[in-house]
Amino acid sequence: MSQKLTSPNEDYAKWYNEIVYRADLAAQSPVRGCIIIKPYGYEIWEGIKASLDRRFKETGHQNAYFPLFIPQSYLKREAEHVEGFSPELAVVTVAGGKELEEPLVVRPTSETVIGEAFSQWIQSWRDLPLLLNQWANVVRWELRTRPFLRTTEFLWQEGHTAHATHDEAEEETLRMLDVYAAMAIEDAAIPVIRGLKSNVERFAGALRTYSIEAMMGDGKALQSGTSHNLGQNFAKAFDIKYLNKANELEYCWTTSWGLSTRMVGAVIMAHGDEVGLRLPPKLAPYQVVLVPVYKTEEERSRVLEVLHRLAAQLKAAGVRLHLDDREETPGFKFNDWEMRGVPVRLELGPKDLEKNSVVLARRDILGKEGKRFVPQDGVVQAIHDLLAEVQANLLAQATQFRDSRIHDVNSYDQLKQAIEASGWARGYWAGSDDDERRIKEETGATLRNFPLEGQPEDGVCFYTGKRGGGRVALFAKAY
Amino acid sequence: MSQKLTSPNEDYAKWYNEIVYRADLAAQSPVRGCIIIKPYGYEIWEGIKASLDRRFKETGHQNAYFPLFIPQSYLKREAEHVEGFSPELAVVTVAGGKELEEPLVVRPTSETVIGEAFSQWIQSWRDLPLLLNQWANVVRWELRTRPFLRTTEFLWQEGHTAHATHDEAEEETLRMLDVYAAMAIEDAAIPVIRGLKSNVERFAGALRTYSIEAMMGDGKALQSGTSHNLGQNFAKAFDIKYLNKANELEYCWTTSWGLSTRMVGAVIMAHGDEVGLRLPPKLAPYQVVLVPVYKTEEERSRVLEVLHRLAAQLKAAGVRLHLDDREETPGFKFNDWEMRGVPVRLELGPKDLEKNSVVLARRDILGKEGKRFVPQDGVVQAIHDLLAEVQANLLAQATQFRDSRIHDVNSYDQLKQAIEASGWARGYWAGSDDDERRIKEETGATLRNFPLEGQPEDGVCFYTGKRGGGRVALFAKAY
Repeated sequence: MSQKLTSPNEDYAKWYNEIVYRADLAAQSPVRGCIIIKPYGYEIWEGIKASLDRRFKETGHQNAYFPLFIPQSYLKREAEHVEGFSPELAVVTVAGGKELEEPLVVRPTSETVIGEAFSQWIQSWRDLPLLLNQWANVVRWELRTRPFLRTTEFLWQEGHTAHATHDEAEEETLRMLDVYAAMAIEDAAIPVIRGLKSNVERFAGALRTYSIEAMMGDGKALQSGTSHNLGQNFAKAFDIKYLNKANELEYCWTTSWGLSTRMVGAVIMAHGDEVGLRLPPKLAPYQVVLVPVYKTEEERSRVLEVLHRLAAQLKAAGVRLHLDDREETPGFKFNDWEMRGVPVRLELGPKDLEKNSVVLARRDILGKEGKRFVPQDGVVQAIHDLLAEVQANLLAQATQFRDSRIHDVNSYDQLKQAIEASGWARGYWAGSDDDERRIKEETGATLRNFPLEGQPEDGVCFYTGKRGGGRVALFAKAY
Repeated sequence: MSQKLTSPNEDYAKWYNEIVYRADLAAQSPVRGCIIIKPYGYEIWEGIKASLDRRFKETGHQNAYFPLFIPQSYLKREAEHVEGFSPELAVVTVAGGKELEEPLVVRPTSETVIGEAFSQWIQSWRDLPLLLNQWANVVRWELRTRPFLRTTEFLWQEGHTAHATHDEAEEETLRMLDVYAAMAIEDAAIPVIRGLKSNVERFAGALRTYSIEAMMGDGKALQSGTSHNLGQNFAKAFDIKYLNKANELEYCWTTSWGLSTRMVGAVIMAHGDEVGLRLPPKLAPYQVVLVPVYKTEEERSRVLEVLHRLAAQLKAAGVRLHLDDREETPGFKFNDWEMRGVPVRLELGPKDLEKNSVVLARRDILGKEGKRFVPQDGVVQAIHDLLAEVQANLLAQATQFRDSRIHDVNSYDQLKQAIEASGWARGYWAGSDDDERRIKEETGATLRNFPLEGQPEDGVCFYTGKRGGGRVALFAKAY
């Protein structure tokens, strides 16, 4: 039997790493800062992908694929962009046995190479909007890495669109932010907060950056997806122009938006507990695990026969499941699947056979309270209902936790208290960029975003005391 | 109106390139040898992916993701492997602003990094078989590149498995070859020939390589997927061992198998004609295009109203379609969608409105012969049937073409004639590796494979005159 999991209250970082490896989500790789995403972790990502891809297509986007390599000169064309990404680049200098004349950068993001393509593909207003997305790997040479949260190479999608006007680009930027929020809330059961990033925190080269921010189990924030209105910055750097209806040449307005395998880390930290992972049913590789309970070989074969029948029924109803027929004790299996966060466990033993029933145990409510006995002929409906309950309860728990940790602040002292209490501070902010940086230095908290919802007409800045000219902001320590 | 497409009989290579760009499958990129896969081309790949992914999962495989970068030293551990791939490597030497101590190779394939992982994950016979697949990009620095067929970076899947015995590995190798063949035949409508590669042509580091070979419209062969029994070569190089049931340590037997975006090129060249692309319905981004025919605005609105209704019905029935309401002539649109290979065109004009019918025109049979009038209330069923007919007919046409171009040969002269006639030569082969190389030098033809089917008990080598000790082989010029 393996050792007990480190408690998240004791050492959250250690708890996180233990879950990643012990729940078999990922493995270490021989390349600095890169992980191997194992099947159980990759399937969570496949769930996120499928949900987003469907939503992208519903909002009129098409997938395409652009090269991994970007000529070094391209990155230099947008001044802020190159400054933002230069320190993190991996560069191919030798290929086919020869030194390259122009080194190739492994894409850290693709605004530049896609901007160049857009400039060739877009001629007139008829070509707009151009709405593309790409599923890809990107590389950023990070100094400190953590599985899923920050890795040198990571998987993501990056949307890139071009529009005729500022307002259309802004609408698109917010539409895709909403798509991210919908996936996070409906599928990952994470109650993210949509909002505008501050100037200090916005994307290198963007006019405005919006984010969804999620609260993790230790009260820190995790930026889980970003959507950028790039204004005409990249259009000017890459000469993306179109003929408007009056036959005049104008620069386009572009957007980009990305969400990555970091989201798998968000799922772990938003829902995990002392016992291990807790996966929302909509993203769980296995929604149900079937565990046979028996003492004799004769019992074993009777129990397994029924379990195979129930598994077939559930599979036919679209339930993702696993029948665990390993030669281990039920207790070992219970622990194992609780660690791996399977939403519902179905147990069946000789006594249940007699009663034509099964035991359903939900992962979100451990112990007796989370168990129910249901007749075998009603299992499909019962599981269907229970999965919906677990999905809703995980969201409710995470929402309650988040709300209990967000503190309204009217002074810098109150902000400090909120942060020290491992919470988020919410308050009216009219400070300068330098003020914002000072808070980060002094407290470790950053301005996560200006939430889109709940903005008052007016207010008094908790830091500068200024009235008006500001917005309600969220401050928190962040990953 | 754009210029007429170059005839494939006149200049096949030019015809191919024109289709790629004019049907909007891909665009040139600023990076040498890399293309941009545009939405219309990417959707074909998505269709191939979905088909394979389903088949991989049905045969018990799980997806995972391994790092893009491979430490240079890893590639050197398997002697043949490093020799095979060294000339084609792209190497990252600088990252995060510093020279790397050990350069990182951008993966040309992942046997090495996955072999290292397997050596850590596999302990006992209980861990076998280990059946993984990864969807990824890979880079091979090719000197001569062509869109889809051979690009510096390409997308593919690579399966990697480990087994307890040679026979299980061989079974897996052939099972996945069959999966490739099933996808090619059933979905891409390409009658590929499964067979064993010669020693000269096998994968660097493999015991045995199998391939599916497709005949293109110019009579050349395209290797469209390969499956390798790696024997214990990589197991020994990476120390992949397991404890057998007798508690003895043994090396595993591993396999790998890959299919890439090259398959999109196969679809183009197996089915394309004078007019453009012809897409098999199962892989076509749009299976049906709806084209309104009208003269007046009043007609336009009446026609479009019905088309929108029919489009909704077809969509609900799962048909992928596009309603082309551009302000262009029907003739322009007919040409455009014929070029882009949409399997079925649905036309509707004022006369059809009167008769409550529509015109269905199939892409695989142009002109009057391929047209039929069907009542509007039977459109869903008619389209469903017609798509199945087109799918079957494309496979039948390609099979007939292939068979008409395969010539049985009993002498080297006959081989030369077959190759000169832009065909394949099939004959009993017992020559040496050097003989095989000589034929390549003298005729340009390579030994494509030894087909799995139709092998005789015995024979006389058409080249050496030797009796027995050989097998029937296919020779052809190849991409």
